Amino acid sequence: MKTLPFDLNDVKRWTKDVPTPFYIYDEEGIRKCVNDLNAAFAWNKGFKEYFAVKALPNPSIIRLLKSLGCGTDCASVTEVLLAQKCGIDGHNIMFSSNETSRAEYRAALDAGAIINLDDVTHIEFLEQMGPLPDTFCCRYNPGKFNITNDIMGHLYDSKFGMTLEQLKEAFAILKSKGVKHFGIHSMIASCSLDEEYYPRLAEELFRLALEIREELDINVEFIDLSGGIGIPYLPNERAVDIFAIGEGVRQVYERMIKPAGIEIKLFTEMGRYITGPYGYLVTTAIHYKHIYKEYIGVDASCCDLMRPAMYGAYHHLTVLGKENEPFVGKFDVVGSLCENNDKFAIDRPLPKVDLGDILVLHDAGAHGHAMGYNYNGKLRCAELMMHKDHSTTMIRRAESIEDYFATLDVDPAFGK
Amino acid sequence: MKTLPFDLNDVKRWTKDVPTPFYIYDEEGIRKCVNDLNAAFAWNKGFKEYFAVKALPNPSIIRLLKSLGCGTDCASVTEVLLAQKCGIDGHNIMFSSNETSRAEYRAALDAGAIINLDDVTHIEFLEQMGPLPDTFCCRYNPGKFNITNDIMGHLYDSKFGMTLEQLKEAFAILKSKGVKHFGIHSMIASCSLDEEYYPRLAEELFRLALEIREELDINVEFIDLSGGIGIPYLPNERAVDIFAIGEGVRQVYERMIKPAGIEIKLFTEMGRYITGPYGYLVTTAIHYKHIYKEYIGVDASCCDLMRPAMYGAYHHLTVLGKENEPFVGKFDVVGSLCENNDKFAIDRPLPKVDLGDILVLHDAGAHGHAMGYNYNGKLRCAELMMHKDHSTTMIRRAESIEDYFATLDVDPAFGK
Repeated sequence: MKTLPFDLNDVKRWTKDVPTPFYIYDEEGIRKCVNDLNAAFAWNKGFKEYFAVKALPNPSIIRLLKSLGCGTDCASVTEVLLAQKCGIDGHNIMFSSNETSRAEYRAALDAGAIINLDDVTHIEFLEQMGPLPDTFCCRYNPGKFNITNDIMGHLYDSKFGMTLEQLKEAFAILKSKGVKHFGIHSMIASCSLDEEYYPRLAEELFRLALEIREELDINVEFIDLSGGIGIPYLPNERAVDIFAIGEGVRQVYERMIKPAGIEIKLFTEMGRYITGPYGYLVTTAIHYKHIYKEYIGVDASCCDLMRPAMYGAYHHLTVLGKENEPFVGKFDVVGSLCENNDKFAIDRPLPKVDLGDILVLHDAGAHGHAMGYNYNGKLRCAELMMHKDHSTTMIRRAESIEDYFATLDVDPAFGK
Repeated sequence: MKTLPFDLNDVKRWTKDVPTPFYIYDEEGIRKCVNDLNAAFAWNKGFKEYFAVKALPNPSIIRLLKSLGCGTDCASVTEVLLAQKCGIDGHNIMFSSNETSRAEYRAALDAGAIINLDDVTHIEFLEQMGPLPDTFCCRYNPGKFNITNDIMGHLYDSKFGMTLEQLKEAFAILKSKGVKHFGIHSMIASCSLDEEYYPRLAEELFRLALEIREELDINVEFIDLSGGIGIPYLPNERAVDIFAIGEGVRQVYERMIKPAGIEIKLFTEMGRYITGPYGYLVTTAIHYKHIYKEYIGVDASCCDLMRPAMYGAYHHLTVLGKENEPFVGKFDVVGSLCENNDKFAIDRPLPKVDLGDILVLHDAGAHGHAMGYNYNGKLRCAELMMHKDHSTTMIRRAESIEDYFATLDVDPAFGK
């Protein structure tokens, strides 16, 4: 059963200052998660988590993660600037992007970030912009991959990364152009709860690193296992044991890398795993509707949390203060968007919901607010950080009507 | 074959001032579309198109439509304010919303808009806010509906509207509370290219109006056929003949309403049909990638046009200046988002694309820019209006980094 780190009294206190809907992030939950991750990989000298900023691009989160030793994985100009404004710079930024424009590469180069090359043709693209940095990572796409003995990941239609041949070609070209430090990156799975995933991926990438050492006389100094570790969205799913994963990778490392007499630093680029379970969308029931189905209307919409609408994603839902009440029926919990996919839950068994009840959507801390949009003129909601004592800090305010109209200042009726 | 109202020379001229990606809307195309729509329904005294602002919430578009006699269909505070800033007020605003908050109703009431009630329980909700307006529309959800003899629309899982019994109950309650003017709204289909759809829907709603007159002694003064008329996204699809649709509705009106000796005004709430075909997303090819498939990377992403990512929607694509060149293969045309659904086209036959080529995505004038978002820190692009002489006006500027960081002004590092 899914629990919450706060209760109805907390929310009643918070909503005196901040109306629903809003996101709240559990600072202590994130802290423990990162500390455990770091501990699970402490055996690897140089291990570093580069937080995937796209999951939750908020400076308070990034500074918290920095204080815990994390860098950032950035994918755009704005994400690089966000990291820099949080005091993260140089090789503490991994720039993992694809179909990258000059402007985006410019920002990454200026920050001194490690460029994670998505394609061999980007070497020439970058050369036109000036001297190459001395460190590069290359993104590998194996085409197919056994995540477990049973589960095969097919990557033939994935736009990311290079084939084996291209990766080797890229390494050779980069070496010939004076690049000194090399890494490999690969992301095969998304939201995998399989504890074998990282060890299997590490094995594949270790083999590749050794092959590159043999064939190209290049020491791969770091391997970026990227993200892909999942979280239990469904109540019957179990969180991964990050220590088991770390130990699994360690065993592969001991078997493959130690005997070669070399050291390879391991990096991760988790987003969902770090903040997903520790973020909640808090909303209020404002309407009840009985037509061909039973509906509960809430004051959040898919403009606040797009995952159910875009992916059909499940987000667990708690009616605050009614955790132990019996279910009275199945409900669609819907937002106010003029689109029928604006449903946070479909046929969800729930206790009796009264108007004014607080509903909490779980596991919204990653790819939640970050994917917010303004369809139907909806304004994106605020983000709060919950501290250890359950006090809060507003770490992003809600959008205002002025924000919504900001890019219309070219229009006489809306100009300043 | 799909054609464009501009050519490569036009775009080369425009991009001297405005870099790709950007949206461009064809003013004359929209004008002709609305004029034809108005002509097709000119037989109905009081016919009015309420443009669904959600499709393209830009004041220059709204003012253009106002000059052609349109009102607006609004769904939120911001959309109501946008309409008012464009000089549209009172009954020229239809407020069609669901799970509506007090704040949204407040804006609609203050504007004097026609409230299109989504549920019978909202009467009580509105009464708590003050005296009811003297005019109401009620939204009908028939549960199922024969769009044609072959196509049945199932609406059992649609969150919108009232059942037949609830609609009648709402009318009776409203009448008892002194409401004087009544209308019926129903939206059954989305993007239907069937010219029978509106006549069939009109028939159903005319029957309902006559039933209400008989049973409740209420004259339904207007019927809102809503949107639902589609556009030909695919090159082998044919645009509907709006005159045939208008004539089809007229025949039903003559048969059912005339004999009753009454008059009913007809309203529409088209969005997609009005602006969809006359908006284009203009982007530049910036990378070519050959891995397990062939990719063309462009400088737009699904943050600019979400429909392919969210709905798997087809948008036709023209490589400008290469309209008559032979296809050389099939390509995925992809944006730079770190998500594999950021594909504008999959396995699309295309001529040889060179880097720097301009690619135009068709039929992006509705639910295009309006659904833009900032995932991966992407900034939303500009919107241009193309006038008759192919000169342009920027009607919305591109987002800036300052816009992106605006709601972080609660953060010391980002405060003003």
